[in-house]
Amino acid sequence: MSAAEEPGDGAGSLSNDVLLFFVSTPERPEWVDRISKRFGGLRVRWVNSIREDKSVVNVSELSPELFDGVTLFCTYMPAPAELIPKVRFVQLTSAGADRWLGHPKYLEESTVFCTSNGVQSPQIAEWVIGAWLSHQHHFPRYQNYMKTGFWEGPFEQHFQDSTSLRIGILGYGAIGRQCARLATALGMEVYAYTRSERSTAASRRDDSYCVPGTGDPEGVLPAKWFHGASRDAVNDFLRQGLDLLVISLPLTAETRHVVGREQLAILGSTRKAFVANIGRGGHIDQDALVEALETGKIRGAALDVTDPEPLPKEHPLWKAPNLLITPHVSWRTDVLWDRLMDVIETNLERLAAGRPLINVMNRQLHY
Amino acid sequence: MSAAEEPGDGAGSLSNDVLLFFVSTPERPEWVDRISKRFGGLRVRWVNSIREDKSVVNVSELSPELFDGVTLFCTYMPAPAELIPKVRFVQLTSAGADRWLGHPKYLEESTVFCTSNGVQSPQIAEWVIGAWLSHQHHFPRYQNYMKTGFWEGPFEQHFQDSTSLRIGILGYGAIGRQCARLATALGMEVYAYTRSERSTAASRRDDSYCVPGTGDPEGVLPAKWFHGASRDAVNDFLRQGLDLLVISLPLTAETRHVVGREQLAILGSTRKAFVANIGRGGHIDQDALVEALETGKIRGAALDVTDPEPLPKEHPLWKAPNLLITPHVSWRTDVLWDRLMDVIETNLERLAAGRPLINVMNRQLHY
Ligand SMILES: NC(=O)c1ccc[n+]([C@@H]2O[C@H](COP(=O)([O-])OP(=O)(O)OC[C@H]3O[C@@H](n4cnc5c(N)ncnc54)[C@H](OP(=O)(O)O)[C@@H]3O)[C@@H](O)[C@H]2O)c1
Ligand SMILES: NC(=O)c1ccc[n+]([C@@H]2O[C@H](COP(=O)([O-])OP(=O)(O)OC[C@H]3O[C@@H](n4cnc5c(N)ncnc54)[C@H](OP(=O)(O)O)[C@@H]3O)[C@@H](O)[C@H]2O)c1
Repeated sequence: MSAAEEPGDGAGSLSNDVLLFFVSTPERPEWVDRISKRFGGLRVRWVNSIREDKSVVNVSELSPELFDGVTLFCTYMPAPAELIPKVRFVQLTSAGADRWLGHPKYLEESTVFCTSNGVQSPQIAEWVIGAWLSHQHHFPRYQNYMKTGFWEGPFEQHFQDSTSLRIGILGYGAIGRQCARLATALGMEVYAYTRSERSTAASRRDDSYCVPGTGDPEGVLPAKWFHGASRDAVNDFLRQGLDLLVISLPLTAETRHVVGREQLAILGSTRKAFVANIGRGGHIDQDALVEALETGKIRGAALDVTDPEPLPKEHPLWKAPNLLITPHVSWRTDVLWDRLMDVIETNLERLAAGRPLINVMNRQLHY
Repeated sequence: MSAAEEPGDGAGSLSNDVLLFFVSTPERPEWVDRISKRFGGLRVRWVNSIREDKSVVNVSELSPELFDGVTLFCTYMPAPAELIPKVRFVQLTSAGADRWLGHPKYLEESTVFCTSNGVQSPQIAEWVIGAWLSHQHHFPRYQNYMKTGFWEGPFEQHFQDSTSLRIGILGYGAIGRQCARLATALGMEVYAYTRSERSTAASRRDDSYCVPGTGDPEGVLPAKWFHGASRDAVNDFLRQGLDLLVISLPLTAETRHVVGREQLAILGSTRKAFVANIGRGGHIDQDALVEALETGKIRGAALDVTDPEPLPKEHPLWKAPNLLITPHVSWRTDVLWDRLMDVIETNLERLAAGRPLINVMNRQLHY
């Protein structure tokens, strides 16, 4: 939902608030100007967390005065609790809150945390389906052959198109739903997995931020729905003969190493799934993954996230076959901040009007 | 349309016919058995054009007796005219007929030629969109970094997702329409180009073979339609600010070098299009393409077809930047022959019943 679509709720005032941006993008003076006027003189401070030389500013390098009086905070990284005592609203620029777990502010129920759910979905789904197609069509192999000008005969490789293959989406949230849309266009069958049960049409809806024309906000694309928080429930899902497994879960205590040796064996036992992880590195037992790739148990994998990050130079994952690793970039796009500004403006409106926010983080479940 | 969907037209007889397959797949004895019975004793001969060692059998190596009495011929390669005097129906296993141009049988109006239009569309559209996404998300770069275990900072590259980018499809036929479906799911705007004008809803339909759930048989996806056979009409299309240009044309006298120096300059002048060619190598002036890539005029390209094929080892295309070359494999899939058997069974039914065939080649236009 874009800010412009909000039906004329004459914006209330946020004149007593100070909004601090600590974000990986330069200040947008026009936006700041407009917003400040719109909300009765809201004061806005902006720190670009990326230096000119592209290095990253650590939150500990920020001058404490910056935080004086801050009540609204837009950030990815947490700030020390003693610097942000008055903060009542944190707009995260990430979909996950794993950096904040255990933080005193996060434990404080009265502070609302909102995620950036939905602003990364189009590009991350592109990454997932791009990595899948690149593997299925042997692009890395041909890219290598180009170096020596080798034109391989057309019958040397096995090719499989995606029509009637099956995608399993472990975490059918904002990102998972756009993966489903792309997979459906490819002719794939979509199996969805959520934590909570979705047995009614109403419960299948997702009302977090969604770029118009993308995703599956109504929840109508999956052929089958699965759910549960237990390992047994996950294993049952993985047994459905998946060709492609997408991990689009938040990292929580429940989901840590949700794909380990046992799960990879299950995935390998039917259609030798391809595993795409854009959640967090901690979702996968990486030793088990290296083994599964080296022994050809699964057909391949693509990781945008690893544990730790950066992945150390000598880590065996780098050399595992049929694997693509990218350095946590799948969320990147040149329109990210347009979408994020949309989310935050919507939430400022709602804050000012005392209405419920969008993309509110569930503090029991941490996503 | 699958053979099974044909409403019960008790198959007529083809008892006086001999059907020869010269195709890159082993005989399907059950299919042959069933078909032979179904059509009153139709005689079927089958030669696999791929040897066990994966080398290709040339048509000149076939024993002339194989052709005795052949009236129906399923093939990609032409056979010498003197071997196939009685052939009245040629089912091509390719979408194009360029190998047959000038062949005496092809010049004979009374012989019907049908293409395999539609059986390659899903996999070729996957190839196009996979190559596009792989480029946009810098996969070849990251694949290279993996060799040295280099984890690049996330802000080093520019990323652009496809939402609200524009795809231009030069040749909005079977393949182009499935590219449109995938691009639409990505949130792209589709501009379509055909030879003939499509100003009415009815004229926008395409009734060639289509894998259910894929393509755009109704012709409803494009935001804008363009048409014409002249270079001026093509240039006007290329001026529309395309991010991605797909060449999915047949190779005819009209379309030879349809993308040359002038066209690449046009494509480079607005959004620096990415060019994906899955038509034929002859559609592009390759010297001009090398230059456009080396000078960064266009953002990149992907070629599944080159001129000649195989592309010689020393050809400068191999070393051009931002380019993917694959050895004419985009049509490959393990279900190709299931689809082709569907097309040919449909056409045998229609032949036997004296009804018009599907996928009939236009012999004035050669596609
Ligand atoms: N690589 C990157 O750059 C990048 C960028 C953005 C996000 N991410 C990661 O992707 C994750 C998903 O993002 P999103 O925007 O799609 O989030 P989302 O909309 O909150 O969706 C999360 C989904 O996961 C399900 N889930 C949560 N806990 C589960 C559990 N224990 N077992 C099974 N399913 C569970 C949820 O089920 P319910 O619907 O029942 O709640 C929901 O379907 C984020 O949390 C983040 O870790 C990575
Ligand atoms: N790389 C591979 O492995 C592979 C595999 C299969 C096919 N191909 C190539 O891809 C081509 C397209 O296949 P398809 O199945 O999509 O064919 P199709 O259904 O016949 O579509 C061809 C499209 O090109 C248009 N066209 C023809 N001549 C034109 C001209 N002079 N100017 C502008 N547009 C023109 C047609 O316009 P109208 O609709 O007005 O006729 C039609 O929209 C084939 O001919 C073949 O060369 C390559």
